[in-house]
Amino acid sequence: MKIKKKLKRSSRKNMHKGQLLWAKAKKIIPGGNMLISKRPERFLPEKWPAYFSKTKGCNVWDLDGNKFVDLSLMGVGTNILGYSNKEVDNAVRKVIKNGNLSTLNCPEEVELAEKLISIHPWADMAKFTRSGGEANALAVRIARAATNKDKILVCGYHGWHDWYIASNLSNSKNLDKLLLPGIIPLGVPKGLKGTTLTFNYNDLKTVKTILKKNKDICAIKMEVRRNFEPNKNFLKEIKKLCKKYKALLIFDECTSGFRETYGGLHLKYKVDPDIAIFGKALGNGYAINAIIGRSNVMKYAEKTFISSTFWTERIGPTAALKTLEIMKRKKTWKKITKIGSQIKKRWKILSKKHEIPIDIFGLDALCGFTIKNDKNNYLKSYITQEMLEQGFLASNLIYVSTEHNKKIIDKYFKILDKVFFKIKKYSVNSNFKKFLNSKVAIQSFKRLN
Amino acid sequence: MKIKKKLKRSSRKNMHKGQLLWAKAKKIIPGGNMLISKRPERFLPEKWPAYFSKTKGCNVWDLDGNKFVDLSLMGVGTNILGYSNKEVDNAVRKVIKNGNLSTLNCPEEVELAEKLISIHPWADMAKFTRSGGEANALAVRIARAATNKDKILVCGYHGWHDWYIASNLSNSKNLDKLLLPGIIPLGVPKGLKGTTLTFNYNDLKTVKTILKKNKDICAIKMEVRRNFEPNKNFLKEIKKLCKKYKALLIFDECTSGFRETYGGLHLKYKVDPDIAIFGKALGNGYAINAIIGRSNVMKYAEKTFISSTFWTERIGPTAALKTLEIMKRKKTWKKITKIGSQIKKRWKILSKKHEIPIDIFGLDALCGFTIKNDKNNYLKSYITQEMLEQGFLASNLIYVSTEHNKKIIDKYFKILDKVFFKIKKYSVNSNFKKFLNSKVAIQSFKRLN
Repeated sequence: MKIKKKLKRSSRKNMHKGQLLWAKAKKIIPGGNMLISKRPERFLPEKWPAYFSKTKGCNVWDLDGNKFVDLSLMGVGTNILGYSNKEVDNAVRKVIKNGNLSTLNCPEEVELAEKLISIHPWADMAKFTRSGGEANALAVRIARAATNKDKILVCGYHGWHDWYIASNLSNSKNLDKLLLPGIIPLGVPKGLKGTTLTFNYNDLKTVKTILKKNKDICAIKMEVRRNFEPNKNFLKEIKKLCKKYKALLIFDECTSGFRETYGGLHLKYKVDPDIAIFGKALGNGYAINAIIGRSNVMKYAEKTFISSTFWTERIGPTAALKTLEIMKRKKTWKKITKIGSQIKKRWKILSKKHEIPIDIFGLDALCGFTIKNDKNNYLKSYITQEMLEQGFLASNLIYVSTEHNKKIIDKYFKILDKVFFKIKKYSVNSNFKKFLNSKVAIQSFKRLN
Repeated sequence: MKIKKKLKRSSRKNMHKGQLLWAKAKKIIPGGNMLISKRPERFLPEKWPAYFSKTKGCNVWDLDGNKFVDLSLMGVGTNILGYSNKEVDNAVRKVIKNGNLSTLNCPEEVELAEKLISIHPWADMAKFTRSGGEANALAVRIARAATNKDKILVCGYHGWHDWYIASNLSNSKNLDKLLLPGIIPLGVPKGLKGTTLTFNYNDLKTVKTILKKNKDICAIKMEVRRNFEPNKNFLKEIKKLCKKYKALLIFDECTSGFRETYGGLHLKYKVDPDIAIFGKALGNGYAINAIIGRSNVMKYAEKTFISSTFWTERIGPTAALKTLEIMKRKKTWKKITKIGSQIKKRWKILSKKHEIPIDIFGLDALCGFTIKNDKNNYLKSYITQEMLEQGFLASNLIYVSTEHNKKIIDKYFKILDKVFFKIKKYSVNSNFKKFLNSKVAIQSFKRLN
């Protein structure tokens, strides 16, 4: 009781507007917003600021004018160069001056196609969309058209579209193993039952069994790497199996791209797919997705009907071109990997110091930790609450940006040290519900955490 | 021969960069670009400028610096307020200054939801995407989820996604009647066969027959109006049938929205759907789509998995809010309807004067004409060629904008008068191939013409 009072007292003043607007939003927008990962309930239901008014570097201002350092999702992976990057923004400003859309096409899309192909020499052609889900659906359409086979074998998260959520039509737990438990394939036509099969990362055996049993698999579609390292030769074996069974290999690099290499993460593992998909960080906060691939496959995009008005707007490819230029110049993938690797080390040190066992996972530049405890969710919420109080957006996952400099990271760890100290003091096994000034965070869609 | 020489002589100088870039684009982008309607081959294969460098009002500059007046597609319907509208652009500039994307949500999406609901009092909730095809797919997902039925009955064009192109799985000519002949459902999974049924506009009889035979139709999905007026009570009868067969009514207003009313065209006909979809003109040249609907239906968007990162960016809803404000203030739907109605009248006058019979079709603010001749495509290409020579982007279809003032329309008709004169002189039935300085326009996907 005393503790709760203290927490209430120390709460930042005027953090209300965002919560009020969120309450309104939930009444007029199903789910309250457009992206599940950005729902306040996933962080700290009654305290998360919910909306932003301004951004800069790795700072975010809420609707009450409170400034927060973002050591969490950084736009859910969209801003490797930090928020409001001057150079990218200026390139976009020029587009606004000269026009974003017209009856004619924008030349920047050709330049971007060239650039992405030059970064990935195995690829010959490119298409662009303005959402990752749609980019994935496009890649699947092309793979089905090119092979004249309908089934697809997937690992990882690939968006909301029918082809993917169809995984759960034959067994409602199929997506659980891809860390998306609890997805009901409501509204996905039953005719798609059995078209999308799933496998766990590093589970070659299942892949082999499924490919043997199903001769009509058009492609294996997967994230190159998510939380764990690939076993030795895992990706190379996947590619061999694709060749053997005449299935295409599609890498969804929406999340992994540009975080550890200048381009797709597959460049590091030296396994070239037939198609790769990019998004998120590609436009540093502006909407742009790319599907690149070999011409013998991509040419099928012309034979089937694929077309969309807003895929022709100019801001997307312009932002991407500038972002790629800056990434190359600053070798940003090296920089964020280094920062992330240090964050991982320091989490480990804190864990040892306070004797709070944690698991650390993910790419260095997209790293996370989980306190080994069955009440981990309460602990996670408690950490978010304490960090918020000190002006940090923080949960258990960090999308590292180049703007996360040493000073910021030092400050983050100084506060986290104190939070870990308190967790230890109250005992990691105690009921942290009583220390929360809000309801506990909702944990659905684990993969999105 | 003499004529061809003359044409060559009078060609605008330096109209090469666009065509050269287009040749390159076709090698590295399947189809050359992202939207079929913007392919130069659809206008004048070897002469259409293909790319733009700059826009303003209803002017477009090509890569060689040539200025054209756009009396054709105006961004394929995206720019009712004309290109580079100052107020909309300034609102977007402010977004760039303050940040487009962050870990938190943008408040503008809530405001836009409110605004669209207030314009359409039958609607309670809204969702947003960044492409029309995806907005349609989302509406279909919701309809299937809400009714627990898989089949859908459609009329009109609704994008590239599987659910729609599946129309042609049972009969490759199903989409022909929706003016989209020649679509092969390549890459669309065969399990969707029979899920999407089609009907012709104004054909109530077919609708009744299909609904009687198929008890599992989740919705009727249609454009409120396309080229022809609805028969008396047609839309009301459709709504009655929906009620009788417990199917939802979805209006795709991506093209028709804001052209004749402040909101959906259904407001004019006083028939409220369960879901309506907007796009194109909503952001006046910035990507934004909206799906609005009744809460008893829309709430299913929460029960199924729908989520996308780039749907959270801030430019889209900001541009839409400013566009709606300007539309309301200037009563733009009245203005463009008036201009379009005058264009139709003047086409008719020209047709009579030169004794060239034409068909006139479409909403006033989205009007078109076709010369009644089996070689119409050659004539259309000839008109485009002659208009291009005089600095006009023109074909047989005009998406009217508020920037199409009397002076511009007068000039357009002054030139068109001369072109019609020449057509009459050479005889409308003569082989216009010999008068073309380029290959003839490709005519696929008639609906998109």
